[in-house]
Amino acid sequence: MTSTTNKANASQIKALVFDVFGTLVDWRTGIAAQAKALLSNDFNLDWDLFADSWRAQYQPSMQRIRSGQIAFCTLDTLHMINLNQVIKDFKLEGIEEPTKQKLNLAWHTLNGWSDTQDALHRMRKHFLIAPCSNGNISLMIDLARHNNIQWDAILGAEIAGNYKPHPIVYQRSVEALGLKPHEVVLVAAHSSDLEAASAQGLKTAFVTRPFEFGGVGSPHHHLAETKALTAVDFSAKDLSDLADQLGA
Amino acid sequence: MTSTTNKANASQIKALVFDVFGTLVDWRTGIAAQAKALLSNDFNLDWDLFADSWRAQYQPSMQRIRSGQIAFCTLDTLHMINLNQVIKDFKLEGIEEPTKQKLNLAWHTLNGWSDTQDALHRMRKHFLIAPCSNGNISLMIDLARHNNIQWDAILGAEIAGNYKPHPIVYQRSVEALGLKPHEVVLVAAHSSDLEAASAQGLKTAFVTRPFEFGGVGSPHHHLAETKALTAVDFSAKDLSDLADQLGA
Repeated sequence: MTSTTNKANASQIKALVFDVFGTLVDWRTGIAAQAKALLSNDFNLDWDLFADSWRAQYQPSMQRIRSGQIAFCTLDTLHMINLNQVIKDFKLEGIEEPTKQKLNLAWHTLNGWSDTQDALHRMRKHFLIAPCSNGNISLMIDLARHNNIQWDAILGAEIAGNYKPHPIVYQRSVEALGLKPHEVVLVAAHSSDLEAASAQGLKTAFVTRPFEFGGVGSPHHHLAETKALTAVDFSAKDLSDLADQLGA
Repeated sequence: MTSTTNKANASQIKALVFDVFGTLVDWRTGIAAQAKALLSNDFNLDWDLFADSWRAQYQPSMQRIRSGQIAFCTLDTLHMINLNQVIKDFKLEGIEEPTKQKLNLAWHTLNGWSDTQDALHRMRKHFLIAPCSNGNISLMIDLARHNNIQWDAILGAEIAGNYKPHPIVYQRSVEALGLKPHEVVLVAAHSSDLEAASAQGLKTAFVTRPFEFGGVGSPHHHLAETKALTAVDFSAKDLSDLADQLGA
């Protein structure tokens, strides 16, 4: 896509909504570090593998809600259910409830990628910005405080009562902004999210986050997408690059 | 209530949620001014009375939703319905649709009272802060941008799918913050709002806004409450005074 096309697209854009886990914050490093800090006195594990295993429960747990099998509950709740699964799988016995609660809150204090804070700050001068994440509102509030991000609103799963990529999450987020879908861009490092947003009429921006699943040599490193697997309106190497392309 | 009691209360408080129209922003002056700007070429009215009349439709229009008579729709939509009622009552004929749309957006650019921005800025350093208003999310976003307010999230009617003082609006706002009701304070200039919040276990803070319904001599001036008509945890002459009492 040429920069001319990008500029034409950018002139209609009024809001940017963001995937958060992986796109704005580094969940794997943060979860592994917190798990190690809380559990390494009693257990000796591959902490990265622990983080990967916890995260691997993410999609299946949300699918139970997307499919209508159970009613909506927050990601904090799903994370706790999933944590108990991982504890069982890793045969970690005797972890006290307060420790589990602390570990579950590790998702609330993940660090942003190095360009996240600055790029969002730049974008906010030109566009409304909001998370469109599967994380619940209090989780998003805490991540924003932790990373010095100023959102205009917290959109996403909790206001929709369902999880991405269910269409209603994108629809409700656009509606809450009082905008038309083509005036809103979903920014994400994951093609499945972008494809689902595009199907609801949103513009899309792909950013690469090459270390979401660990560095080169990490067993899941290849899961990080190096290019969008679906048609997108913007494709950027990181969030700063996207800010440049948007004229922010 | 003594300041000792206030300090004891303040130590448990984690978030402040705010009524907006009347408590943080001056709806009457703003609506009258915008109506005059848009309509005075064609009509000669008492613009304050026009604002009062439009606002007088507010509670009855929400009551249709609280009672379950019609499904939830946003305050922007109710404002438009109510505007058409006022146009009819004032016998204002021939107003074009784009002008009505502009006038309806007057609610999005109301000015804060003189201490609003600074007091919220102080409070945000100590507490999570969010609107708990009947205004929809996009309306709250626009007011925040217009008045340089930085919220942690936009709570209130739209995330609850109902209107204050229905209990679910306070319940959902507390739940979205991931807090217990007694850790959250509703701040409002209206006793009915405070009473309803208190019934759901929230702490309450009354602030006076003596000019909400106009200055001395204005026909509705007496509607501004000079003291809380229900038991409250904090009572303040304005938002700066409340910030002082909260140690912010």
